[in-house]
Amino acid sequence: MKTPIIALLTDFGTEDGYVGAMKGRILSEVPDANIVDISHDISPFDVRQAAFCLNNSYPYFPDKALFVVVVDPGVGTDRKGIVVKTSQHYFIGPDNGVFSFVFQREGAQVYEILLDEFAEEISTTFHGRDVFAPIAAWIAAKKSLKNYLAPVKEAHTFLHSPHQISENEFEIEVMHVDHFGNLILNFHKDDWLKLEQSAEMTVRLNDLELKGLNKAFSGVPAGQFLLNWDSSGFLQIAQNNGNAAEKLNSTVGDQLRLYI
Amino acid sequence: MKTPIIALLTDFGTEDGYVGAMKGRILSEVPDANIVDISHDISPFDVRQAAFCLNNSYPYFPDKALFVVVVDPGVGTDRKGIVVKTSQHYFIGPDNGVFSFVFQREGAQVYEILLDEFAEEISTTFHGRDVFAPIAAWIAAKKSLKNYLAPVKEAHTFLHSPHQISENEFEIEVMHVDHFGNLILNFHKDDWLKLEQSAEMTVRLNDLELKGLNKAFSGVPAGQFLLNWDSSGFLQIAQNNGNAAEKLNSTVGDQLRLYI
Amino acid sequence: MKTPIIALLTDFGTEDGYVGAMKGRILSEVPDANIVDISHDISPFDVRQAAFCLNNSYPYFPDKALFVVVVDPGVGTDRKGIVVKTSQHYFIGPDNGVFSFVFQREGAQVYEILLDEFAEEISTTFHGRDVFAPIAAWIAAKKSLKNYLAPVKEAHTFLHSPHQISENEFEIEVMHVDHFGNLILNFHKDDWLKLEQSAEMTVRLNDLELKGLNKAFSGVPAGQFLLNWDSSGFLQIAQNNGNAAEKLNSTVGDQLRLYI
Repeated sequence: MKTPIIALLTDFGTEDGYVGAMKGRILSEVPDANIVDISHDISPFDVRQAAFCLNNSYPYFPDKALFVVVVDPGVGTDRKGIVVKTSQHYFIGPDNGVFSFVFQREGAQVYEILLDEFAEEISTTFHGRDVFAPIAAWIAAKKSLKNYLAPVKEAHTFLHSPHQISENEFEIEVMHVDHFGNLILNFHKDDWLKLEQSAEMTVRLNDLELKGLNKAFSGVPAGQFLLNWDSSGFLQIAQNNGNAAEKLNSTVGDQLRLYI
Repeated sequence: MKTPIIALLTDFGTEDGYVGAMKGRILSEVPDANIVDISHDISPFDVRQAAFCLNNSYPYFPDKALFVVVVDPGVGTDRKGIVVKTSQHYFIGPDNGVFSFVFQREGAQVYEILLDEFAEEISTTFHGRDVFAPIAAWIAAKKSLKNYLAPVKEAHTFLHSPHQISENEFEIEVMHVDHFGNLILNFHKDDWLKLEQSAEMTVRLNDLELKGLNKAFSGVPAGQFLLNWDSSGFLQIAQNNGNAAEKLNSTVGDQLRLYI
Repeated sequence: MKTPIIALLTDFGTEDGYVGAMKGRILSEVPDANIVDISHDISPFDVRQAAFCLNNSYPYFPDKALFVVVVDPGVGTDRKGIVVKTSQHYFIGPDNGVFSFVFQREGAQVYEILLDEFAEEISTTFHGRDVFAPIAAWIAAKKSLKNYLAPVKEAHTFLHSPHQISENEFEIEVMHVDHFGNLILNFHKDDWLKLEQSAEMTVRLNDLELKGLNKAFSGVPAGQFLLNWDSSGFLQIAQNNGNAAEKLNSTVGDQLRLYI
């Protein structure tokens, strides 16, 4: 039997030992689990950043990999905990939109986690340790979860498509700013492929106008801005050898115009 | 035979390669070790933060797990290196109080590490790599450590109980500020269970007065402060969807009054 | 067969999921790989910091360990991707000097990675995921790489020896500032052993003059500066229980004089 892969993504930081508690809990249930850190440096409560980070990572993992995602500002409220099953992977975490890209990308079955069935007391502040970690471990160990899960029809998602203003004009926005300051926009290569591709693309952000797609950062001189596809296929504004977000003083939610 | 679990907790950051050296050293001795990162983001030299982080993590790990804790401002002095053995776990690190919560929680045997017995030269600045990592690996590999360890009676601990001023008044303090800004206090649910529980609890920090325990952060509107038990059972002051430490301008060591 | 060890060192941070993508890619090729994080907190584009971090880590890893190092400001240009093979280890990454210390320390065979041979499309912005991770996984899986690699004679290196001004005077510089603020200098114990060792060593940095080597940080009172060998054998200026770089307002590239 193969070693189960359980990947973790949280906004906990590591310095309080909360991630350590989740790892300990998983290893107590599945001692040979291969625990993989995706990130614990998501900004506190930033569900959108976590969703984006997950989307950049999970498609590259092998079949049967499990993802425990705990960015959970609503812990202790009546927000549901869910298990999301796709053809290849499992995702476990709160139903707050953190799996939005998964739902956009592929079909999924969604199950609510029934807290009343847990034998041990569950804290109201730390479902990562008390609910999501053990559920992931039990799935990995092929324990029956019949009593713990109930199918649900819908789950939260926050994604919206770029807003088309006219035939050749879109209102788009900065969806994510990455570690290098690249501004990643809610316009995907797939959106582009549906359009007339021979035309040139222009993006306008305040006074900055960028024309045409570059293949690499180095398509422009150091310090200049450029447009290209990010490594997951989203349109991005980058600065060669620099930090575009800082230089342009731009951040998540900023509105842009895209002209085809 | 099961894969040995060796968990690491340091104040090294990762960017200098010091943690990498410890991992390499362990894997050179025990190639199939399951090395688990608890944290490398402890504030430099902050023994109390490391102790708190360890306390939040280690109880959830399976039997036989080993914990190498290197927050070691006294490296190169005559401070001892120690191995702490409890009924379930091993802890390896400097004798500077970093294992205080372990000693408070359960019985333990303590051994001093005898540096003169090491075959290789030991640096005076990096016992994590040269002493604690190999000792942990040798325990995991069931190598005899007879010559390397000598029992000692006492080890350092810095914990003190909350100070009872009168029948219904305690002086307590902020013991830890976590990643989310929760103020964690040196008053445990176990201290509370020893008292008359029917009475209401009030905590006063400067001008802020908080009455009564909440179950979840969401027991109060967003932005308001509350009292609850943290996920390890300590009393904490939190702000629903906010950072209490920042808003209250409070930090480790601040004094509070608790009224029962 | 032993579990392959694949160690990762990047400047990606973790919060965008780029490291997660590399881990997923490796595990898809080699499901039982033992992936070891060395660091993802290298300053963006800081090839020298990455080289230093690698040098502090890799010598302690067991035979056959693979190191994937992705600090790659030139991704998408014509900079080569390379595989470096020493008697014990493999290193995979861009040819930008990040393996300088490896070349200084030991003999190595260097191979260029031939991008044209890859079956899948390779992004121009993320060779960590599309090139270096799979190459490492294929080496670990003992897949033949005959078509993917071509021997090359030379690789980039940025190291230079300390500059000897007279018989007993050297111009040296700050090569690295570590997490604790220690100033690590480009003068190695091996350089020292070649000289007359009986003489005393003096280092001058602006107004600060330090005489003689200390064995441990605690060789001087708390708050005072000292000279000693760092844990990899480089001369360093440290402050006992303090941050020398901050106190001395000194950083990478600062020039110093060393008198023997």
